[in-house]
Amino acid sequence: MKRTLGTCYYPEHWPEEIWQEDARRMADAGLTWVRIGEFSWSKIEPTPGVLHWDWLDRAIDVLGAAGLKVVLGTPTATPPRWMIDKHPDMLAVDADGNPRKFGSRRHYCFSHLGYRDESHRITRMMAQRYGQNPHVAAWQTDNEYGCHDTVISYSNAARDGFRLWLADRYGDIDTLNTAWGNIFWSMEYRSFDEVDLPNLTVTEPNPAHMQDFRRYSSDMVVRFNKVQVAEIAAASSAPISHNYMGRVTEFDHFKLGKDLQIATWDSYPLGFLEDRVGADAAHQRAYARQGDPDFQAFHHDLYRAVGRGRWWVMEQQPGPVNWAPYNPSPLPGMVRLWTWEAFAHGAEAVCYFRWRQAPFAQEQLHAGLLRPDSEDAPAMAEAQQVATELADAPDVQPAQAPVALVFDYDADWAWTTQPHGVGLSYFGLVFEHYKALRRAGISVDIVPPNHTDFTGYQLIFAPGVMHLPDALRSALSGAEGHVCYGPRTGARDAGFKIPVPLPPALDGLDVTVTRLESLRPDMPVALKDGGAVTGYLEELETTAPMLLETQDGAPVLVGDAAQSYCGAWLDATGLDRLVALLAEMASVPILTLPEGVRTRRTATEEFWFNHTDQQVDTPAGTLPPAGITRRPL
Amino acid sequence: MKRTLGTCYYPEHWPEEIWQEDARRMADAGLTWVRIGEFSWSKIEPTPGVLHWDWLDRAIDVLGAAGLKVVLGTPTATPPRWMIDKHPDMLAVDADGNPRKFGSRRHYCFSHLGYRDESHRITRMMAQRYGQNPHVAAWQTDNEYGCHDTVISYSNAARDGFRLWLADRYGDIDTLNTAWGNIFWSMEYRSFDEVDLPNLTVTEPNPAHMQDFRRYSSDMVVRFNKVQVAEIAAASSAPISHNYMGRVTEFDHFKLGKDLQIATWDSYPLGFLEDRVGADAAHQRAYARQGDPDFQAFHHDLYRAVGRGRWWVMEQQPGPVNWAPYNPSPLPGMVRLWTWEAFAHGAEAVCYFRWRQAPFAQEQLHAGLLRPDSEDAPAMAEAQQVATELADAPDVQPAQAPVALVFDYDADWAWTTQPHGVGLSYFGLVFEHYKALRRAGISVDIVPPNHTDFTGYQLIFAPGVMHLPDALRSALSGAEGHVCYGPRTGARDAGFKIPVPLPPALDGLDVTVTRLESLRPDMPVALKDGGAVTGYLEELETTAPMLLETQDGAPVLVGDAAQSYCGAWLDATGLDRLVALLAEMASVPILTLPEGVRTRRTATEEFWFNHTDQQVDTPAGTLPPAGITRRPL
Amino acid sequence: MKRTLGTCYYPEHWPEEIWQEDARRMADAGLTWVRIGEFSWSKIEPTPGVLHWDWLDRAIDVLGAAGLKVVLGTPTATPPRWMIDKHPDMLAVDADGNPRKFGSRRHYCFSHLGYRDESHRITRMMAQRYGQNPHVAAWQTDNEYGCHDTVISYSNAARDGFRLWLADRYGDIDTLNTAWGNIFWSMEYRSFDEVDLPNLTVTEPNPAHMQDFRRYSSDMVVRFNKVQVAEIAAASSAPISHNYMGRVTEFDHFKLGKDLQIATWDSYPLGFLEDRVGADAAHQRAYARQGDPDFQAFHHDLYRAVGRGRWWVMEQQPGPVNWAPYNPSPLPGMVRLWTWEAFAHGAEAVCYFRWRQAPFAQEQLHAGLLRPDSEDAPAMAEAQQVATELADAPDVQPAQAPVALVFDYDADWAWTTQPHGVGLSYFGLVFEHYKALRRAGISVDIVPPNHTDFTGYQLIFAPGVMHLPDALRSALSGAEGHVCYGPRTGARDAGFKIPVPLPPALDGLDVTVTRLESLRPDMPVALKDGGAVTGYLEELETTAPMLLETQDGAPVLVGDAAQSYCGAWLDATGLDRLVALLAEMASVPILTLPEGVRTRRTATEEFWFNHTDQQVDTPAGTLPPAGITRRPL
Repeated sequence: MKRTLGTCYYPEHWPEEIWQEDARRMADAGLTWVRIGEFSWSKIEPTPGVLHWDWLDRAIDVLGAAGLKVVLGTPTATPPRWMIDKHPDMLAVDADGNPRKFGSRRHYCFSHLGYRDESHRITRMMAQRYGQNPHVAAWQTDNEYGCHDTVISYSNAARDGFRLWLADRYGDIDTLNTAWGNIFWSMEYRSFDEVDLPNLTVTEPNPAHMQDFRRYSSDMVVRFNKVQVAEIAAASSAPISHNYMGRVTEFDHFKLGKDLQIATWDSYPLGFLEDRVGADAAHQRAYARQGDPDFQAFHHDLYRAVGRGRWWVMEQQPGPVNWAPYNPSPLPGMVRLWTWEAFAHGAEAVCYFRWRQAPFAQEQLHAGLLRPDSEDAPAMAEAQQVATELADAPDVQPAQAPVALVFDYDADWAWTTQPHGVGLSYFGLVFEHYKALRRAGISVDIVPPNHTDFTGYQLIFAPGVMHLPDALRSALSGAEGHVCYGPRTGARDAGFKIPVPLPPALDGLDVTVTRLESLRPDMPVALKDGGAVTGYLEELETTAPMLLETQDGAPVLVGDAAQSYCGAWLDATGLDRLVALLAEMASVPILTLPEGVRTRRTATEEFWFNHTDQQVDTPAGTLPPAGITRRPL
Repeated sequence: MKRTLGTCYYPEHWPEEIWQEDARRMADAGLTWVRIGEFSWSKIEPTPGVLHWDWLDRAIDVLGAAGLKVVLGTPTATPPRWMIDKHPDMLAVDADGNPRKFGSRRHYCFSHLGYRDESHRITRMMAQRYGQNPHVAAWQTDNEYGCHDTVISYSNAARDGFRLWLADRYGDIDTLNTAWGNIFWSMEYRSFDEVDLPNLTVTEPNPAHMQDFRRYSSDMVVRFNKVQVAEIAAASSAPISHNYMGRVTEFDHFKLGKDLQIATWDSYPLGFLEDRVGADAAHQRAYARQGDPDFQAFHHDLYRAVGRGRWWVMEQQPGPVNWAPYNPSPLPGMVRLWTWEAFAHGAEAVCYFRWRQAPFAQEQLHAGLLRPDSEDAPAMAEAQQVATELADAPDVQPAQAPVALVFDYDADWAWTTQPHGVGLSYFGLVFEHYKALRRAGISVDIVPPNHTDFTGYQLIFAPGVMHLPDALRSALSGAEGHVCYGPRTGARDAGFKIPVPLPPALDGLDVTVTRLESLRPDMPVALKDGGAVTGYLEELETTAPMLLETQDGAPVLVGDAAQSYCGAWLDATGLDRLVALLAEMASVPILTLPEGVRTRRTATEEFWFNHTDQQVDTPAGTLPPAGITRRPL
Repeated sequence: MKRTLGTCYYPEHWPEEIWQEDARRMADAGLTWVRIGEFSWSKIEPTPGVLHWDWLDRAIDVLGAAGLKVVLGTPTATPPRWMIDKHPDMLAVDADGNPRKFGSRRHYCFSHLGYRDESHRITRMMAQRYGQNPHVAAWQTDNEYGCHDTVISYSNAARDGFRLWLADRYGDIDTLNTAWGNIFWSMEYRSFDEVDLPNLTVTEPNPAHMQDFRRYSSDMVVRFNKVQVAEIAAASSAPISHNYMGRVTEFDHFKLGKDLQIATWDSYPLGFLEDRVGADAAHQRAYARQGDPDFQAFHHDLYRAVGRGRWWVMEQQPGPVNWAPYNPSPLPGMVRLWTWEAFAHGAEAVCYFRWRQAPFAQEQLHAGLLRPDSEDAPAMAEAQQVATELADAPDVQPAQAPVALVFDYDADWAWTTQPHGVGLSYFGLVFEHYKALRRAGISVDIVPPNHTDFTGYQLIFAPGVMHLPDALRSALSGAEGHVCYGPRTGARDAGFKIPVPLPPALDGLDVTVTRLESLRPDMPVALKDGGAVTGYLEELETTAPMLLETQDGAPVLVGDAAQSYCGAWLDATGLDRLVALLAEMASVPILTLPEGVRTRRTATEEFWFNHTDQQVDTPAGTLPPAGITRRPL
């Protein structure tokens, strides 16, 4: 299989006269794919029922004629202004009860049935018109579901939908009352019609209430997407994708991804570092022009799982962006590095966002491959270099990693619902495990919580999976590799109760969490022999061997050759020790990598990446700043 | 009198089958009291008018049969969901105008007449049913008035009530206009019906407007409580209490407490340290597992005053809680220390919250005496130890303290209304005086602003009492002990105007505040010979002897043997000097205590408490971490 | 011309019996002016249509009889309570959609036609009554337009007005769609009636949308003021003024000022330092009692431009204020220094706010010349000293400065709309240029963006003028002095698009901004030979000589003798170098001043001001803390 490049293009933004030249330059640059259409509804349907497809027909023709393959996006992330008059209550509502108005994008509530029908209608028309078009080689539904915090809406549509969803889930209201423990503060309902949304409560709402509302909200995204997929699949045999956004965890990507053939994601390493990685200032400073060395890789591995092997980077940052608190330029070479890193993790394609920097509207300070005056921007040369390298070099050969790491969206919501201490998040916990594995030179597969076949994994991590579903519990219990659980794994039942017997209640490992505490950041609890617990610590009652302990001798990591339980959030040193210890038990080889250097192993070779702005010596040779090398195994 | 222990229990949360065993274990642990009922309205009245008392009858029977005494709580803090349909406008409204919705607790506006009637109705039924029950040995009205910022509501009910209250207070609108100085910005009203609530104004509202709204809001809490008290008292001779929450100052506890026989409060030392003490990070770190060494004692002394001698801790933290930014476990021994400290300050009873940790709903991470699986939690052993010690040791003999400290809720509102500088609060000012007194080993009585008999006090502090009522002014003026006023004492008249002649206008002490300033935290004004003014400083025109002055020679503390005025907010060193100086003048002996050690003197003995996590040498012997000792005088 | 002093007085706040004595004391203190009336609407018209002018007649008589000249203010900043009942929708609406309620001041939306008519009506009556009064020697419209963030309102009145304004500006909706680039996210409108206000959008609105809304909002202030001016001018020949507030940039003061004869502003050096200067903590600490050494001077120079030479300080801080986060007292001597500094910059009059400290309402902790008990406050002696000095000393002779600095309100809105990086603001950029010029001892004229005659200026700065109007571009291009552009100068066209050819597209200077980035504060980019770029950096494609460059050799400042372009936000050292370099090229002499010392040159002399609290040696002699000296040229 040949890895390919592409770009995101908006023919509707530019005079038709330049389309052909644009297309020619894309092809000349070595690009294969061009994504179009996803924000063009007002151009397609300027007035309700009046459809203008002709320009899109011509755009696809021009692009196809230049040898490019089109990814066609449904335009449902940007319903036109007239839609609001037609469905005034389709707007999402924020937690304060304010409607989130027209004037940018994603101005719809996933629960709104009227808008769902409109999305259905435009998708059907688009699919029927272009389903057999020879240049349309892939589809994209909507754009970045959940971006701008758009999964959760406190609208009346959401309230009504939530009541039906609860009725469906619980059958009768007493079952819900019991599952949620509503007796606690006289919160019992007499019917589903009494359930309101969990915003604006006097103090925190019942976490079970909040967690179910998060689950409902995620299901609404899945439902919305499914409608589009059905229409496209009926008309076209081209694969269907969606472009997920980094660290958007408010809906279950695995559930949504099941309905798609390809997972894609939008990779903005510098914007993310400022906005979403959650690193301290020193780290943000050190990697301001390179991005976090692990954040992209984590998402690559995540979306490989979401796409069941088939995944792309649909939007790759090519220069400064416009939306982060600070928007620096990338270090020369980083665009190439980011692109190759995606391929090393198995991406089928990497598309640069966007072709030409727009001189107008919200993203006018978002770089493209071209400057606003159509001259090449600095990223163009790096993209062309990758295109050449792709043509010349052997293809990347995927391989299963030795280590699996469970990622569970439901757990992320559970930690958000009940973090217990400021700053504690499930994503953060899993990502810190991932970083420790990467620092040890280990390639990782991320797996969903419904994964049941762990064959071939020597080591499996399942930290923080608050509710451990029976199937996963049993699959892990029977895994051949070593399984490391905790902290908080199995801490809640499906209804957000603490189970009795107390967690984690593992088969074959005697360990009970009898009490837990969250800790100020300035009071780490030292581990014997190095590292520390930070932020969160459990008291364990256990007869199992102690693998890590506090300086006072309290158990932190306990276990045997088959499984272990870690009752703490460890700092980087602590996690490095945990990884080293378990990797040795599981016979997974580890490396000591220089700061900012990362490696990824495929079936046939090792990729090495220097994420620093300094030259670095590595076992694979000396790498310049932003340097890359491929070394056959 | 025998001091006793108790716990808070929710029979409605647990299967009826385990009540008996629970009751037996409570009694075996040495507990006397069990508080029940205060969140059980939906269990009592699941549907309007359909009353289910049977379960409560049986619960009281079971508990009573085990030898326990019941404190029965009215369930009005948690009106059921159907109440909202009956009275849709009963919800409180926040400062932004949003209703504070059902879904947790305290979802009512104190001004709402419909809900007041509902509260009246359920209380009457409960009082009539259990007023003569032999096991019901005390009552509690509602739960934690004011918790979750629920005193102030910007509802229509509050607006209407406020207008009536103003009409009642001022008689005619011109009197109000003059009292408030409404001419200032053309804010004059033509009738009381034109007065709105002081939220959402373009810039700050008139402080007189805000202050009266705070007074009104406090009065509504008192009115609400009074209705319940009247019904209970009519049916029962058992004492009536309310459980106040730490550092809730939005209503006047003295006024409310007058209608009750016992004041109780809910003591969460670790939660408070993170959330309400206002300490710096180093102090929060040092006492993260012990709580502030003075915060609980301050409230003990405050509620002894509110209860006119009769007071309890109704909820004592037994382990980590769930609601603070960080929720660590207490140092071993602290539960015992906290309990004994309450007794040393005169508590009649200390009840642990709660019996068994709930595995569901909002407080599932709030520890109890039992774990969710019914095993003993760590606090149980400490509670049992106290029970044993109580049985063996002599009773605590109360005594009047040598020093009185005035605490005035109206002053707290005045400082909140007009802090003059960021971070300046009346509670903070009084508490820092209290801490300085405690650091000097002095036992303190807190007294209300309507206190008139200061007999026996050698030293009296009245800092920050913005409006000094005539009776208090005259009582202090006639006191035999030395009285220390200021800063800001007497700075406003009852209508929030600066009086002329200028403050403080003390009889027999020539001092006038001619100007005042608030100061950045990084610009302390040094005192001659040590210590500094921080945050707030007055310019004093005075012929009185100078007791403390700035390095530049400006008077800070002036006075004579009878009285003194301090025109500044002093730092800890400055307050220590002030205390030492005035204590010497008033012949109050002082001590130099090691960091974190505190002492409390009763009629017959001295209690010593080590609040640190280190062993400390004290005049009463060496104390281990969390250690306690009693030394006869 | 004789410079004069005055004060702000509220006869309606005080018993009529003391007016005469007050007037006498004002005159005795050497004051010439007394401003009255601007908050007195409820006293004038307590009930709709019932006018009480008598008290105001008498007040003007009393003041005039004492020899004082009256500045009469229209009372429209404080419409009475009954006005809200008459026009319930006249309140401004905040960005969250909440009405900004009655209860303080400025509670009106500039777009509301009903309130505009009321303002018209009361102004007409006042003008007709007092237009020929011999004591009314000047007028003031309203009070501090824009204070308390009152320019922008998201009301329905604003929405309706904005639509009309857009229709007027763009003619047809397609022109607007194209100008704004609404095709970008399908944001196209079909008619002006579809345009909503740019608040509460899901993510940021189109910057062109926001920028036009800011322009509209500014125009509404101008329109509101114009109505009052027309009525006053029709009835009176006395000059008309408005008192602007420091760092209020939400409306175009130049446009509004065109309709007035005198610009005045309200100078609160200590309040501003805490609240608006944007300095770091060390600077705020160092100047806490003196105010920033340049902030007042900047506004003096700004309002000299706004008033086309005629300007006053209408409200001069005389002691601690009440509204900043911290409110310290001024260093002795500063009130005199501030007054003389205003005169040195050309003020015709300086009026102290206020005569007597009010013991009631919102500003009771705002000092006056008198204390609440009518004794002299400390500022009185300093005011009297200035009065004496004015009588004795030669008048200040204005002169054109050697350096001009463009200030453009439209550019300030553009940077606010699109800062690109956290903390970057146009006001900040211009002010930092101004400070650097002042540190070099250079006197500066601020000029508006429609200035076309730069005759006499040796050096002209136009940093950050995002949209460079054609007339200004051409005037600067033809200027005889050296012109320094950038950063971001000319970066957008009138419709907020990036122009092609790319900015700055200067005649005769080959420089193109090909890419730009915002930078974390902790990643300064060092300049070769000292100083650094902070926060913002452009990549320049240029063949022009390099005047400043980064350590890596990238051009930062490029240009020749006639003009230069700076593609970066420089730190203080960098700006000092830039000023020194260009001043030398332009033959403008510079000085090296001690920290906190500033100088201002007039036609005949040099004023020297010591803003520090230490004695300092200067070329003009040794100055005590807060010292001033005048040195003939």
